[in-house]
Amino acid sequence: MEALKQAIRDIPDFPKEGILFKDITPALEDRVVFRKMIDALRARYKDQKIDAVAGIEARGFVMASALAYVLGAGLVLIRKPGKLPYQTHRKTYALEYGTDAMEIHVDSLKTGQNVLLVDDVLATGGTIAAAVDLIQSNFKANIVEVAFMVELDFLKGREKLKGTNVLIHSMVNF
Amino acid sequence: MEALKQAIRDIPDFPKEGILFKDITPALEDRVVFRKMIDALRARYKDQKIDAVAGIEARGFVMASALAYVLGAGLVLIRKPGKLPYQTHRKTYALEYGTDAMEIHVDSLKTGQNVLLVDDVLATGGTIAAAVDLIQSNFKANIVEVAFMVELDFLKGREKLKGTNVLIHSMVNF
Repeated sequence: MEALKQAIRDIPDFPKEGILFKDITPALEDRVVFRKMIDALRARYKDQKIDAVAGIEARGFVMASALAYVLGAGLVLIRKPGKLPYQTHRKTYALEYGTDAMEIHVDSLKTGQNVLLVDDVLATGGTIAAAVDLIQSNFKANIVEVAFMVELDFLKGREKLKGTNVLIHSMVNF
Repeated sequence: MEALKQAIRDIPDFPKEGILFKDITPALEDRVVFRKMIDALRARYKDQKIDAVAGIEARGFVMASALAYVLGAGLVLIRKPGKLPYQTHRKTYALEYGTDAMEIHVDSLKTGQNVLLVDDVLATGGTIAAAVDLIQSNFKANIVEVAFMVELDFLKGREKLKGTNVLIHSMVNF
């Protein structure tokens, strides 16, 4: 996905000084790159009997929605606390300073379903590790793979998933 | 879209007492309903030369992403303040108590582009009126239509857009 890599923009000092942020929005706005990205993911997963694509708020929704459509799957939203209106399971996880949490509706996944979990960027891995645990602790569903648009290799986020048995796929690496 | 209407779940007293919230997540999770919804929107807009589909954070991203894909358009994100990393235009708007704001990257739209603006629910109309103004004040782009999954007729949100010249489409009305 060289076209995707080329379309990602570096933003220095965002969200705070010293961080070089990978801005994916130019890749989404480019109709050719966006289509190529979704088509590549479709090709990867089309024979895997994916029942549901779960996206992590908010940029994860972007990949998850188009991907759920092309795979003929349902779309599941993993959201920040207080955003989902029905009964939820919640997972609290550590940040650099303090904690954060995410939720999923208790009836979002069914036993035996094949789930593809997606987010935009794999950085330190804290968010995705929490999302994997949220699913594995509360549902008898199978996480087929975790897919990212971008992986920041130097942050070693993959290591946070070592204790689980999930596979990881990144479209581009920096 | 009777199937969509049937799939939407009522949640009493969310986000606060006295409000009957329309939960769209069961419609997204149902692969058949989700596909029908996107296909119906594709049929409506496929001959309109849509260049970009703009979605409003966060549930608006869900319709916008799959729709951008099926229309062969780019995807533009309208986000809450501080979330977009590059230079932005900002629109502040009034809430029942206090104010809120939304942003768009300054290079997200180009002169002459046809834009489809989407969000999940048309309620009081404050958010969508702000989004329309954000686009019309800062870009020479044409808003082809504003599309919603759900419109809550009794809140009269349409009236907030009367001063603009935009067309409004809702898939289901309550």
